Amino acid sequence: MDIVIALGGNAILQENEKGTFEEQYSNIKNTIKKIAEIIKMGNNVVITHGNGPQVGDIVSMYEWSKDKLPAMPLPVCGAESQGMIGYMIVQALENELHSLRIDKEIVGMLTRTVVDAKDEHFKNPSKPIGPFYTKDESDAITKEYGWAMAKENDKYRRVVASPVPVGIMEFNVIKRLHESGAVVVCTGGGGIPVAIENGESIGVNAVIDKDLASSLLARKLYADMFIMLTDVSNAFLGYGTKGQKAIEKISVEECEGYMKKGEFHEGTMKPKVEAALEFVKATGMPAVITSLANAEKAARLEAGTVITK
Amino acid sequence: MDIVIALGGNAILQENEKGTFEEQYSNIKNTIKKIAEIIKMGNNVVITHGNGPQVGDIVSMYEWSKDKLPAMPLPVCGAESQGMIGYMIVQALENELHSLRIDKEIVGMLTRTVVDAKDEHFKNPSKPIGPFYTKDESDAITKEYGWAMAKENDKYRRVVASPVPVGIMEFNVIKRLHESGAVVVCTGGGGIPVAIENGESIGVNAVIDKDLASSLLARKLYADMFIMLTDVSNAFLGYGTKGQKAIEKISVEECEGYMKKGEFHEGTMKPKVEAALEFVKATGMPAVITSLANAEKAARLEAGTVITK
Repeated sequence: MDIVIALGGNAILQENEKGTFEEQYSNIKNTIKKIAEIIKMGNNVVITHGNGPQVGDIVSMYEWSKDKLPAMPLPVCGAESQGMIGYMIVQALENELHSLRIDKEIVGMLTRTVVDAKDEHFKNPSKPIGPFYTKDESDAITKEYGWAMAKENDKYRRVVASPVPVGIMEFNVIKRLHESGAVVVCTGGGGIPVAIENGESIGVNAVIDKDLASSLLARKLYADMFIMLTDVSNAFLGYGTKGQKAIEKISVEECEGYMKKGEFHEGTMKPKVEAALEFVKATGMPAVITSLANAEKAARLEAGTVITK
Repeated sequence: MDIVIALGGNAILQENEKGTFEEQYSNIKNTIKKIAEIIKMGNNVVITHGNGPQVGDIVSMYEWSKDKLPAMPLPVCGAESQGMIGYMIVQALENELHSLRIDKEIVGMLTRTVVDAKDEHFKNPSKPIGPFYTKDESDAITKEYGWAMAKENDKYRRVVASPVPVGIMEFNVIKRLHESGAVVVCTGGGGIPVAIENGESIGVNAVIDKDLASSLLARKLYADMFIMLTDVSNAFLGYGTKGQKAIEKISVEECEGYMKKGEFHEGTMKPKVEAALEFVKATGMPAVITSLANAEKAARLEAGTVITK
């Protein structure tokens, strides 16, 4: 089967960790062991991944170093994070497949994701990124750079738009490599955000939801399955309440009903459910939301929240 | 013809510039216009690039931010620079080819270059990287991290090994994409340095000469030509003297003679001449060293220093 697997942030960095290379690479190795098992089952996979903490760190470093070095715009920071995380995934996967005596080409590809320059989200930037500032610093930044800033507890942070992904610039090559049996690692952090203006692709200061971008990729590939691996085993009804109930198999229709009732949290589960629904509705194939630990079972539709048509 | 083109640092950043995104992208766009002309002539090109200033900046930022964030090892910094520069090259090339109505797949690929863990260069690290330190800071760093440090004017800098590239992990995919007509952007900064230990590839703290790595790639591809674009029009005899003389067409034998006489400077022209000689000796095909401005002429063997068998 052709499976697109989107790795959540916790596949790379756990919340209580400092973010050393050793921690990140060790997490990735554990994650990749599970992906390798899915490959060993005979599946042809495409791997995408988040980049939240990493791109946040890169943006912060440019900010802290701005008296010495010019800061890079967000698309460049995103590209740097694709290099960083993509390298670790490719390296871990190759070593793991080698130890399993599986011979596969592995490609870590820089990927640009197209957004609409007129996307409504640009009017209402809401995704916090980079370091925290005091009120005075925040005001000075808005004056100097024109950045939107938002209060977070008693500090301020830059907020950027998270527009809807509408295309993947590298799609044809990803498809060709995937069809030829290579494992493609791509669309990292939702892809480097670009808009097309007068036929020219131009980087835009935005971040793209990696689950929505991965869903777009899975749809365009007509994948047989789309799996999102995250830090919870399932989507839940009444999440966080005493009576929370894991959702197991569910139809598109039922799931849309729960979404309308506000069962899924903005910024965490909701975009995942949306990404799943878009995939299932477009292809008729199942999407799974589950934890890393359940990855192999997910590929057999035996764990997690399985959304079917 | 199949041509491997290695872009020097000045294709991305000029010496008198600050290194803003606008400067770097503008330089890359100018460079890419010339590469696009070579593609328009009907050639099938692979593009490699340096990363000196960029990886230096990334290493420096991690150093400056080390009280707040864990620093990443050199292979990760190299991977980040591949993301950053690769993105700019891919974007500029696609826009340029689009404006010329040339339809080509373009792939920016993360590339790991294999070195021998026992390479003699590890015993004598000589490549300066990252920020400058005082004597006291330098001593403290050696004590804390065990880094080799070297004096540069009255300051100190970390020095790392520059081992000989012996393999390219992603070679098979690069070859396949290249043969199918895609423009592959790869082996950035000489590649992410890895060594193979007990069948496992592991990142190593080193930097790889991008011309030597590009030559290895060109040899393995049996390219018809290997072009290195840099900031001078030719290799020179008596470089820097009043009577300096540009070398135009030259045989391997003659060139080796000049090298033995010490005509080519360590760290600048010598590795380029070595990279060229290795290519010509292995393939029998010509290598060219010239300036960006001469790129098109170089592809017709009408400019620069042309080394033939």
